[in-house]
Amino acid sequence: MSNLENILAKADENQPEALERLFELLRFESISTDIAFEEECIKAADWLVAQLNDIGFAASRRDTDGRPMVVAHSGGEGPHILFYGHYDVQPVDPLDLWDRPPFEPAIEDTPKGKVIRARGASDDKGQLMTFIEACRAWKNVTGELPGNISIIFEGEEESSSPSLVPFLTEHAKELKADFALVCDTGLWDYDTPAITTMLRGLVAEDFTITAANRDLHSGSFGGPAINPIRVLTRILGGLHDDTGRVTIPNFYDGVPVVPDDIRADWAALNFDVDGFLGDVGLHTPAGEQGYSPLEQIWARPTCDINGINGGYTGEGFKTVLPSQAHAKVSFRLVGTQDPAAISKAFRQYITENLPPDCSVSFHSEDHAAATNLSVDAPEFTLAREALSAEWPNDAMFIGMGGSIPIVGYFQKILGMDSILIGFGLEDDQIHSPNEKYDLRSFEKGTRSWVRVLNALLG
Amino acid sequence: MSNLENILAKADENQPEALERLFELLRFESISTDIAFEEECIKAADWLVAQLNDIGFAASRRDTDGRPMVVAHSGGEGPHILFYGHYDVQPVDPLDLWDRPPFEPAIEDTPKGKVIRARGASDDKGQLMTFIEACRAWKNVTGELPGNISIIFEGEEESSSPSLVPFLTEHAKELKADFALVCDTGLWDYDTPAITTMLRGLVAEDFTITAANRDLHSGSFGGPAINPIRVLTRILGGLHDDTGRVTIPNFYDGVPVVPDDIRADWAALNFDVDGFLGDVGLHTPAGEQGYSPLEQIWARPTCDINGINGGYTGEGFKTVLPSQAHAKVSFRLVGTQDPAAISKAFRQYITENLPPDCSVSFHSEDHAAATNLSVDAPEFTLAREALSAEWPNDAMFIGMGGSIPIVGYFQKILGMDSILIGFGLEDDQIHSPNEKYDLRSFEKGTRSWVRVLNALLG
Repeated sequence: MSNLENILAKADENQPEALERLFELLRFESISTDIAFEEECIKAADWLVAQLNDIGFAASRRDTDGRPMVVAHSGGEGPHILFYGHYDVQPVDPLDLWDRPPFEPAIEDTPKGKVIRARGASDDKGQLMTFIEACRAWKNVTGELPGNISIIFEGEEESSSPSLVPFLTEHAKELKADFALVCDTGLWDYDTPAITTMLRGLVAEDFTITAANRDLHSGSFGGPAINPIRVLTRILGGLHDDTGRVTIPNFYDGVPVVPDDIRADWAALNFDVDGFLGDVGLHTPAGEQGYSPLEQIWARPTCDINGINGGYTGEGFKTVLPSQAHAKVSFRLVGTQDPAAISKAFRQYITENLPPDCSVSFHSEDHAAATNLSVDAPEFTLAREALSAEWPNDAMFIGMGGSIPIVGYFQKILGMDSILIGFGLEDDQIHSPNEKYDLRSFEKGTRSWVRVLNALLG
Repeated sequence: MSNLENILAKADENQPEALERLFELLRFESISTDIAFEEECIKAADWLVAQLNDIGFAASRRDTDGRPMVVAHSGGEGPHILFYGHYDVQPVDPLDLWDRPPFEPAIEDTPKGKVIRARGASDDKGQLMTFIEACRAWKNVTGELPGNISIIFEGEEESSSPSLVPFLTEHAKELKADFALVCDTGLWDYDTPAITTMLRGLVAEDFTITAANRDLHSGSFGGPAINPIRVLTRILGGLHDDTGRVTIPNFYDGVPVVPDDIRADWAALNFDVDGFLGDVGLHTPAGEQGYSPLEQIWARPTCDINGINGGYTGEGFKTVLPSQAHAKVSFRLVGTQDPAAISKAFRQYITENLPPDCSVSFHSEDHAAATNLSVDAPEFTLAREALSAEWPNDAMFIGMGGSIPIVGYFQKILGMDSILIGFGLEDDQIHSPNEKYDLRSFEKGTRSWVRVLNALLG
């Protein structure tokens, strides 16, 4: 057997223990957005440091103003690769929609095969562990780690990564590599691996509209007193026109027209719209008129309301005219749309539409431009071939609706491109109750990294 | 001196002991919404029974599934009057905002005169005691109670009156009178008494819009997947047109045009809009264009969003496309607007504006028609004249933006109208910390009832 075949066989042989290790990581309640779970994040980071040191990396926990980073180096020769994943997870609410405790992982049989059920199973603990397990199998067989690898695991990916840019900036020399491998994306479909080369950017806005200085009784004040929920719904209700286009002035500046040949390629992918929507209980594509769902997700910007609240929302009824109303609104960006300009235009739009006696305060900002990676680099071809060898179908270069801000940071701060490879599936329910990761994704993911590392560094 | 003058003098003479009696009642912690205070409610009811029996009523405590009623009859001849008040009070939290213990009443000097400070001083213990003290003075002077009076004191007014309709229905024959006197409202201003004759009705709707069968990631699904918050805001944002009119078809059916002479009367009241709004931090009257604030509150229907929530509303940001969005919407009704028709039209409006893949469920309904008491009845004129004789200014017939459900129950179940007379002031801070009742309200309130009883039954 070749070295590659031996390592792949070893990875398979390691699977039972690999799964136990993943379960250990999944048991940490490493929710980064809530300070109450800070200790759990630290524990998860320490656990990763120990795992990496155990297989020969020089790994350490690097504390930040927020959750710690984990950084490791193999110390080998040749092209330098930086691998990225994140150990933090999304909050778990609403907890009552989970079929089992989110931090007590288990293997479950499903009609589509065995799955690992837990918060973070797919996003991103299961994914990052595929890489560690690939390195472990490599080390088991060859006695050495594969080439010159550095690793960074982040603990704030699900909470806007406040420490990431300062950390990358401060440690640029240590972390800069020839290119990055990022494992936080998905397969194209069950049998088709993918390298994601187009990512939408993000602008997130969190704001409060205030009217009266206290909550009022709607009997005494209903009519003359302005209701901030009504103001909010009227403004938000006007963010789209009847065709689904965003109404904010100049919003579409920098949105490229997709060339006809690319559109034709995408059409040839036979994207299963019915399956995609049907899986989540929907049937009718919504969104901007005149664009296919795939084009909407990959190549069109969107505006969504991610959260809203105001007034009395408990059991029963309270005829209150609240003093305040809140909303969280985010934009997905494409092409060269400028996040700062979009944020400014949005805030201006809100402010200009406020009636008298209302004020608005904006609480946060989160900006990331869209990413368009150059697939002409040879590493992309090598990685694509390696993935194609592992999976039933050849690997595809695809787009993705979400943002992975790390890609932009790596470009801007470390001057390197990222190859985005991951093994998640659309039905993994990341960010939702009952998140899962296919056992097959974990197994073939590990094998995929063995092949990719062999192709790039072997 | 006439009988009336003698009784008024006696009422004044009784004041020191009357105040002591009120303080005894105020010391009961009769919070009806919290079961922990049930015993205190029973004690307050028993105390009232004893007081009423003491002055010659045949009074008894009537237990219900909730807090007890107090019912009393004078057994006299002539027109039969039913007097209504409630002995239960609002909760007192936040306790740290009270300047003194809420159930340890005291007389305090304020720049505007002496006040009785305690929870329930104004709402409604101080008010109901004005009537008892009027009856006592009458009895002291004449040896008899004034005519044919029944009394009902409720103990659940501040907790939605769950026992009221069953009790009125079961004891309709005993309680039915020619008309009711209800003491739970206020003066128009410091020197101007009022009889409230117009009360807005209420329709309350609590509903949920559901789209996907689970929360989705806005990166993966933003665009093709419908967002129920966006649907909700668009629908709610369309409930009013640019002039503030409600857009639901046929909503204004049954809304009377206020005659020019009444509008002129209201204008002559010189309602202090700047003070009314300024007190809560507002300056610009909102609401339906073309109507004064007073007309909006008394004579125009409104639609308000009392609560809204959906998606992620915690700290930080979560780019979720939620499965559901919720809202609570209420309508204040006037004239002969039909609550059932409004509810139906609203639900139809929501349903017809739902895009594909969205469904709506309605969780509750709460209907009360507006009340317009016929001020042509001679009792209204007599009561108005009696009040005018007591206070510096003549009494006004006024409207009120809120609902007093008892008035509707008396009409529907007992077939009688109510005369709403009370002596509270806007600054009494009912339902808030540091509730007070002007000592003058207590004294002149007692004298007012002597005059009203004399006019109606004397």
